Amino acid sequence: MQFLSDNAAAVHPAVWDALKAADGPDSPYDGDALSAALDGRFSELFGKPCTVLWVATGTAANCLALATIVQPHGGVVCHQEAHIEVDEGGAPGFYLHGAKLMLAGGQSAKLTPAAILAAIDPIRDDVHQVQPHAIAITQASEYGCSYRPDEIAAIADLARDRGLALHMDGARFANAAAFLGCAPAEAAGPVDTLSFGFIKNGAMSAEAIVFFDAGAADVARYRRKRAGHLQSKGRYLAAQLLAMLDGDLWLDNARHANSAAQEIGLACAERLMHPVEANEVFVRCSAAEREALRAQGFGFYDWGDGAARFVTAWNTRAEDASALAQAIGNL
Amino acid sequence: MQFLSDNAAAVHPAVWDALKAADGPDSPYDGDALSAALDGRFSELFGKPCTVLWVATGTAANCLALATIVQPHGGVVCHQEAHIEVDEGGAPGFYLHGAKLMLAGGQSAKLTPAAILAAIDPIRDDVHQVQPHAIAITQASEYGCSYRPDEIAAIADLARDRGLALHMDGARFANAAAFLGCAPAEAAGPVDTLSFGFIKNGAMSAEAIVFFDAGAADVARYRRKRAGHLQSKGRYLAAQLLAMLDGDLWLDNARHANSAAQEIGLACAERLMHPVEANEVFVRCSAAEREALRAQGFGFYDWGDGAARFVTAWNTRAEDASALAQAIGNL
Amino acid sequence: MQFLSDNAAAVHPAVWDALKAADGPDSPYDGDALSAALDGRFSELFGKPCTVLWVATGTAANCLALATIVQPHGGVVCHQEAHIEVDEGGAPGFYLHGAKLMLAGGQSAKLTPAAILAAIDPIRDDVHQVQPHAIAITQASEYGCSYRPDEIAAIADLARDRGLALHMDGARFANAAAFLGCAPAEAAGPVDTLSFGFIKNGAMSAEAIVFFDAGAADVARYRRKRAGHLQSKGRYLAAQLLAMLDGDLWLDNARHANSAAQEIGLACAERLMHPVEANEVFVRCSAAEREALRAQGFGFYDWGDGAARFVTAWNTRAEDASALAQAIGNL
Amino acid sequence: MQFLSDNAAAVHPAVWDALKAADGPDSPYDGDALSAALDGRFSELFGKPCTVLWVATGTAANCLALATIVQPHGGVVCHQEAHIEVDEGGAPGFYLHGAKLMLAGGQSAKLTPAAILAAIDPIRDDVHQVQPHAIAITQASEYGCSYRPDEIAAIADLARDRGLALHMDGARFANAAAFLGCAPAEAAGPVDTLSFGFIKNGAMSAEAIVFFDAGAADVARYRRKRAGHLQSKGRYLAAQLLAMLDGDLWLDNARHANSAAQEIGLACAERLMHPVEANEVFVRCSAAEREALRAQGFGFYDWGDGAARFVTAWNTRAEDASALAQAIGNL
Repeated sequence: MQFLSDNAAAVHPAVWDALKAADGPDSPYDGDALSAALDGRFSELFGKPCTVLWVATGTAANCLALATIVQPHGGVVCHQEAHIEVDEGGAPGFYLHGAKLMLAGGQSAKLTPAAILAAIDPIRDDVHQVQPHAIAITQASEYGCSYRPDEIAAIADLARDRGLALHMDGARFANAAAFLGCAPAEAAGPVDTLSFGFIKNGAMSAEAIVFFDAGAADVARYRRKRAGHLQSKGRYLAAQLLAMLDGDLWLDNARHANSAAQEIGLACAERLMHPVEANEVFVRCSAAEREALRAQGFGFYDWGDGAARFVTAWNTRAEDASALAQAIGNL
Repeated sequence: MQFLSDNAAAVHPAVWDALKAADGPDSPYDGDALSAALDGRFSELFGKPCTVLWVATGTAANCLALATIVQPHGGVVCHQEAHIEVDEGGAPGFYLHGAKLMLAGGQSAKLTPAAILAAIDPIRDDVHQVQPHAIAITQASEYGCSYRPDEIAAIADLARDRGLALHMDGARFANAAAFLGCAPAEAAGPVDTLSFGFIKNGAMSAEAIVFFDAGAADVARYRRKRAGHLQSKGRYLAAQLLAMLDGDLWLDNARHANSAAQEIGLACAERLMHPVEANEVFVRCSAAEREALRAQGFGFYDWGDGAARFVTAWNTRAEDASALAQAIGNL
Repeated sequence: MQFLSDNAAAVHPAVWDALKAADGPDSPYDGDALSAALDGRFSELFGKPCTVLWVATGTAANCLALATIVQPHGGVVCHQEAHIEVDEGGAPGFYLHGAKLMLAGGQSAKLTPAAILAAIDPIRDDVHQVQPHAIAITQASEYGCSYRPDEIAAIADLARDRGLALHMDGARFANAAAFLGCAPAEAAGPVDTLSFGFIKNGAMSAEAIVFFDAGAADVARYRRKRAGHLQSKGRYLAAQLLAMLDGDLWLDNARHANSAAQEIGLACAERLMHPVEANEVFVRCSAAEREALRAQGFGFYDWGDGAARFVTAWNTRAEDASALAQAIGNL
Repeated sequence: MQFLSDNAAAVHPAVWDALKAADGPDSPYDGDALSAALDGRFSELFGKPCTVLWVATGTAANCLALATIVQPHGGVVCHQEAHIEVDEGGAPGFYLHGAKLMLAGGQSAKLTPAAILAAIDPIRDDVHQVQPHAIAITQASEYGCSYRPDEIAAIADLARDRGLALHMDGARFANAAAFLGCAPAEAAGPVDTLSFGFIKNGAMSAEAIVFFDAGAADVARYRRKRAGHLQSKGRYLAAQLLAMLDGDLWLDNARHANSAAQEIGLACAERLMHPVEANEVFVRCSAAEREALRAQGFGFYDWGDGAARFVTAWNTRAEDASALAQAIGNL
């Protein structure tokens, strides 16, 4: 009964089917019919024109998006626990040619206008200090918390006021959208670029970078090739994305994972470190309690000394989630 | 009847099987059992210890390899028609942080010691000129020609004399090895790093970077993550590579493609621009002749004004190759 | 009697005076009154608004200018013998974050529209090939030849047609302007950025980057600091530039050097490899002849096997130039 | 009566003399006799072999040094208030190709082994997190505090244990050495690279990068040129450094500045934010008090809302320092 991570979960059967269906001959790179369909399908989803590039990882998605809105001498304000700061092996430094990540605080790894201002207001407006060029937020956050549309709007207002672009790392955007129950466009808000994650949600190897500005997408096309991320047989990536959109599979999968997380969270409300607003549950528990859970066959990561992280996925079995909920409740 | 390129060919059934077989739960990134098996399997293949990292494109493979042997202030000697110079969107400039490609000539896009010396001997040994750090050769070359083991050895000797590292772009290494009929270790020669291509040869999205120096591989691990090329579900890449090695599928596929190319080449020996030593056939023919071929249903790329390029693949049907051979012979 | 290079010549007395005069207390970096005067003085000189930053080397000047008009995934068309390609230790690769130099030919190291087109027309308009973003020309060229205003205009027209920016490396801009006898604005033509050299012409350590677009200059300010080129005591650099402009010292110095070069060139017209249009004279002569000249006390660089390069400077003594002219005439 | 900063102070007369004395003809770049003398002179000063390169700014000195000991995918541990983090416009990101600054705390902007461990021990040893490659300390610190030899030794021990290189930003190394009263080698400790500052201490435009490993210096030579920091008339930079070493002018100048700072510090011991161990005095005082001081003709920077920074220099007049001491004492 694995609750280690959603990023190694199996591939959804509908994705397999789409992969196989893509196996005929077609043009190489992104010249195929499936890749060509992406802009239309995502524009429909968001109810506004957008341009979409596939890539194989969330790290590449984030960094290629940021590279279109941040110059090498600028900075990106992000949460001090953001994935781009903590877990991408310095990829932003590589892709942005040394641009700086500017760290801000905020509850549950969510930025607020106040936290952003606390980070950037002390920056002197001179050449001796790196100036911010963009803000990056994560939907859902590293701690599985979702920005409400008005929270995003407030950050977007600040960004506009200060002439900053706005990027959203949506590695778990589906889980946030499912939790919020609002339209995708509301869950994203007025961001410039969005890394829309599918791999944690049932795909094999395809994420979408969504550009709400076509000019930025044009730049990103060159940067994607330059980064070695333009795969030869791109139809197999496009096929995954389209399969995930078909019939709102992306939302169904996310709802499933979220609901398992909710059940676990409800069983231990008093132990929760963060509200459960996606598919992650951070639970205070002692080493002995963690050992007890593991002895019952549950797999998960320790989260520091006094806590554990449980992640559900599109394929978490309902009975496993219930069993875990009960086991935690019994601690 | 497509002879456009091998890089968009379908995925081999054995690769599909291996992908499906990898679909159980396992560790994320490259922590899975299949990824762990790569070093052993490739070491066996080459008869010497090597370390292997998977990546999704040949561009990433070449650039990550080169990044371990070339410092940002150095240069890489390559053929002026090499893929890294002509067709990788400036990726070497990105991955090598501005290191310089130093262009050399040579028949059929193959370097020779003399061509290399002609490129580097005029370089003054001072800080005003970029100094070479490595040599990159392509096996088989951009024109489908294979380096013989003694040709590689001669270049490797020069490299050692001058303190240069040696990289091999083996996007079509399988075709070269099949053509040469020698052991993989001989087809590679004493290179430091090898991009071993599988995608053009039946895989979906996995290439291997082979490091014959473990220290370089350690650096490359960090660089791969930093470049966003460490995929979450790495087992699906490792599975492809292992499937291609199983029962020498990589060689069988390459032999099949090569043999189709041979048949085509034999039918028009007097028109050949380059000897056919892999799976590409470059044929002198007029625009009218090309039109005639296209009218008969053959797909291929023009190669400048007076020639055409035909590429065979693992799944080129024997009857298609024969038909093309006959059609060219009839021109 | 040294004709090795103008880049190690002594500092002009007027520059010394200006340096000493700058020795009072003032604001650090470029906050001083002298630095503040640069925009006005150069705008007057060019008869149009421009923004000017000082830096300590021509390499930094070229690269900082180019960094404002070339994105990392783009390219710069330059002559294959241009300083930025041949003699700047790969600095463009560093400053432009891996952007590519695209080499073109042309007589006497001068580009022409035809040569530029020959370089860029074969570039496929796709992401696999680096696209040009700018053109860089050198006034005077590496071989001491000056672009006429109409030649620059033709290149500028081409640049505008193709959406390319235009940079001028003016390490010896003064010599070109003096030779052409036209207004500085005509000697520069409609370039976007100009590296205006003073060090070879009597300054100690200050070059000017001239931006005819204020936005580019704003970016360059950040990039200059980021490159460690914003000196603490910038007034000493500004002072040099102002001293060179005062009373057209820059032109006087260049005229002096040019006239010495003319005298030498006239003495050996039939041996000249390039017309003498600045302060460099490239002379065909055998090793024995070069030895003979050296035996008479003349210092200069060999230029390959069968030639020599003589460079005059602001402080070349008239009698030395005459002596050299006579000695070459006597060969 | 200026106490704004030492980095805009006038040039020392002995430096002027040396500049003028260097005005004869010599080889360009660093081929001159003065540049050639640097290694010997600094090796003598430190009592051990070292290689020295001149550059025009402390930012370039720090970054070129770090570039020899930190790979692009690594990190540099530094104090969160270190100049390289706060005041160099992102130059480390540029020079180190995106390597990461890893921030640590510590009293008075000085690192300690404990602070370094607090920064690096939480870093997981995997490719998802940037690994430290080096530590950078500042002597004297941003708050004018000097590391004692045993403090440096403790950090160096930690560095060696963890396989990290050690760099010292010595923009005010002279002031620290003067304060400590020990041999230069002890004030530097066993660092790998040292930026030895002279500009704040009486030079015009020359800092020294001291490499205690010749191999690193060889790399730095290429990187210096590549960064556009190899000046044409390098003898004018070398001359400054030699003049500063002659007769221990560097120490005399620093002692003078330190002693003025001591006098000021003694006058307001109870207001000091940091011990005065170099030439900077950080004094708690209200806005009204600062206004009062300014009304008496003293120039200085506010340091946040409740403090002021006074910096003395080699040319601070004794009577000015006394006047300030008295004025602060009278507040």
